[in-house]
Amino acid sequence: MSGDEAGEPAEETIFTWGAPPLKFGAGACDEIGYELAQYGAGRVLVVTDPGVRELGIPDRVADSLHRYGVAAEVFDGVHVEPSDASFAAAVEHAESHGPWDGFVAVGGGSAIDTAKAVNLLTSCTGELIDYVNAPVGRGKAPDRPLKPLVAVPTTAGTGAESTAMCVLDVLSMKVKTGISHWRLRPSLAVVDPLLTMSLPPEVTASSGMDIVCHAVESYTARWYGGFGRRAPEERVTYCGANPVSDLWCEKAMGLIAKSFRRAVYDGATDVEARTDMIMAATFAGMGFGNAGVHIPHANGYPIAGMVGDYRPRGYPQDEPMVPHGQAVSLTAPEAFRFSFAAAPERHLRAAGLLAPDKEQLDDPAEQLPQVLVDLMRDIGIPNGIGAVGYGESDVPALVPGTMKQQRLLTTCPRPVDEEDIERILLNSVQNW
Amino acid sequence: MSGDEAGEPAEETIFTWGAPPLKFGAGACDEIGYELAQYGAGRVLVVTDPGVRELGIPDRVADSLHRYGVAAEVFDGVHVEPSDASFAAAVEHAESHGPWDGFVAVGGGSAIDTAKAVNLLTSCTGELIDYVNAPVGRGKAPDRPLKPLVAVPTTAGTGAESTAMCVLDVLSMKVKTGISHWRLRPSLAVVDPLLTMSLPPEVTASSGMDIVCHAVESYTARWYGGFGRRAPEERVTYCGANPVSDLWCEKAMGLIAKSFRRAVYDGATDVEARTDMIMAATFAGMGFGNAGVHIPHANGYPIAGMVGDYRPRGYPQDEPMVPHGQAVSLTAPEAFRFSFAAAPERHLRAAGLLAPDKEQLDDPAEQLPQVLVDLMRDIGIPNGIGAVGYGESDVPALVPGTMKQQRLLTTCPRPVDEEDIERILLNSVQNW
Repeated sequence: MSGDEAGEPAEETIFTWGAPPLKFGAGACDEIGYELAQYGAGRVLVVTDPGVRELGIPDRVADSLHRYGVAAEVFDGVHVEPSDASFAAAVEHAESHGPWDGFVAVGGGSAIDTAKAVNLLTSCTGELIDYVNAPVGRGKAPDRPLKPLVAVPTTAGTGAESTAMCVLDVLSMKVKTGISHWRLRPSLAVVDPLLTMSLPPEVTASSGMDIVCHAVESYTARWYGGFGRRAPEERVTYCGANPVSDLWCEKAMGLIAKSFRRAVYDGATDVEARTDMIMAATFAGMGFGNAGVHIPHANGYPIAGMVGDYRPRGYPQDEPMVPHGQAVSLTAPEAFRFSFAAAPERHLRAAGLLAPDKEQLDDPAEQLPQVLVDLMRDIGIPNGIGAVGYGESDVPALVPGTMKQQRLLTTCPRPVDEEDIERILLNSVQNW
Repeated sequence: MSGDEAGEPAEETIFTWGAPPLKFGAGACDEIGYELAQYGAGRVLVVTDPGVRELGIPDRVADSLHRYGVAAEVFDGVHVEPSDASFAAAVEHAESHGPWDGFVAVGGGSAIDTAKAVNLLTSCTGELIDYVNAPVGRGKAPDRPLKPLVAVPTTAGTGAESTAMCVLDVLSMKVKTGISHWRLRPSLAVVDPLLTMSLPPEVTASSGMDIVCHAVESYTARWYGGFGRRAPEERVTYCGANPVSDLWCEKAMGLIAKSFRRAVYDGATDVEARTDMIMAATFAGMGFGNAGVHIPHANGYPIAGMVGDYRPRGYPQDEPMVPHGQAVSLTAPEAFRFSFAAAPERHLRAAGLLAPDKEQLDDPAEQLPQVLVDLMRDIGIPNGIGAVGYGESDVPALVPGTMKQQRLLTTCPRPVDEEDIERILLNSVQNW
């Protein structure tokens, strides 16, 4: 440990970690009424999107609330890939029908993130932009306690039920950014694997690759001790890989190795595989939500944001989109080829956890990329950014969108510049 | 999955888990002022015992609070092995000097448990006995939100900073019991390994055996799915071994294997070993605090409670005592010999994690007991309950004290009756 002139250590010696309490298992979603009644909640807003509402889950949650004497209404106006505008619409709905004693988010990352924002903006003073991460927003901390928020994921992917952040597009600035503060973390994550049984194979595959990237990116992230020492007021939610994020990510990778392919191939009937996958999603959220993610997620922002006319199978066909799990995973093999040299053992260990039976390749830097390529081929992920509409000539336009994600790039174990990102994108036009 | 007549599953399908946010590392204890200022706290009570106060840590915490504009006073009247009487004295002090916006507990399990009780009884209505677990008390849930409580462990042992319960002697009924509810869990655990550097080897050894028992007992506990299905209002803090408690306990056992002996032999200078041990204590708390412990801890209650004139080296000599970590570990080898048959793979895996290099014994049931005996001999734990003052003739008097701990015994993977306990105690008079 070296010291600066004042005798203070120059390297970080402290890491932070937090997670919501968890209620996990078949039938858990029918106990939400009891949980919110414990907080003395009288009126609760259930926040969801129209697709999830059609499945009946939000109204089942509302019934559970009614059984415990809690009045509940359902708001199903959540927008997939939420923006400042869609957050504002949800907040306006909540305010005009409020006040509320608590919230339940039912859905994927979009619903859970929207509920976090609604909770923040109906509990605290000020505007959305006050709370958005600097430099896009003012990075203000919530100035009041938030209301209880129960998060109920219906896909095995984002892990948003575990994390203290929400992601949004700021439309006027054409940038994807977030709000992150420990007060945004749900009060309780209710994870019921049976809610995921009917997901189509394509959604299972794509969402599952988001889990893989969460786990591997935070497992290979810069170690927390490799950052400079921070004062308490400078600490950020993403503090780098640490012993606690490691244990969650290791377990998530083991669950993926065991059950990801089965969940894609036989998800309609394989309860064990569905259970393992949503557990992996939650566990990876417990990890990356504190450690952080790096290049693959940073690249995922422009890859999703600049979509042309790609319409993925298994998703609604009314507008073009690159599903988040595809966007973040398409450059992952090449990104880990790049970051390998900075933390070889960690890349090899991740490869070993994800594919315990894979033969050892001659070039160790190829082990993790090949494990990912094997998996992506097997489960039908598009073959590189070329397969979702980007050619080599599009790469220069994508690079600035990645470089804006400095909050993520700083978590990469190896310093990364524009040329590095350009090369990674070029080499990801086709992955196999 | 079998079903009862109403079509409901008869086995439990749900587990619950919770843990406080964590700030871990050298220097973390100087950031407590910032943390409590974030809650808007104006006046905070630091709860500690006289021995810890002499080390200067509570006043250092108070200074940290003052730097962030938070008024702080130190109460150093915590009693080791707290009782209803000592809780009442602490509550009376807090009430007569209050009101308080938050609490900081600095010390071992006694200080942290006392602060939990003070927080409960100064925040909610009613008496201590209302909240004590039934059947001793009325098992009432806290009727109001509690104040922020930051827990700062100064020994690597109890893991009380992670758990949602506090343990006390009810003097009039001569019984040790507890209060457990998720609202008791600290708002934040601040774990600073440097606070443990000066612990004497005997305290390091004894406290460390408490960690070992937490990790191994909850790792070998009855699986949560092996209990009957509970309604949400029937769920208890200890839900049995589960995938989340497992991951914490596995990691804790690995840290113990790496660093326990070093912490005993070279604890004054081996920062890495101290760091590993207090991390193991916190991790084991994250695990057992949700899964539960079984026979060794149940036996620990009468072994500590009926002490004759045993005065352990390294501890204050003014009154006889069996340190908690000794009391819970002295019957552990024999208890795990007994429970082996109900979960052989788990006992073997625990042995493998605690002693990766130990040769495989002919009798697999002996593997874990021998690993524990090796460890206890090496670090100077007394050789059985005989070495702390109990002979074979004392065993019948100890048995009822164990049998009162049905809340713990029900967590044993194998049904256990009075004769079993008597045999375990008899075979633990001498462990090697």
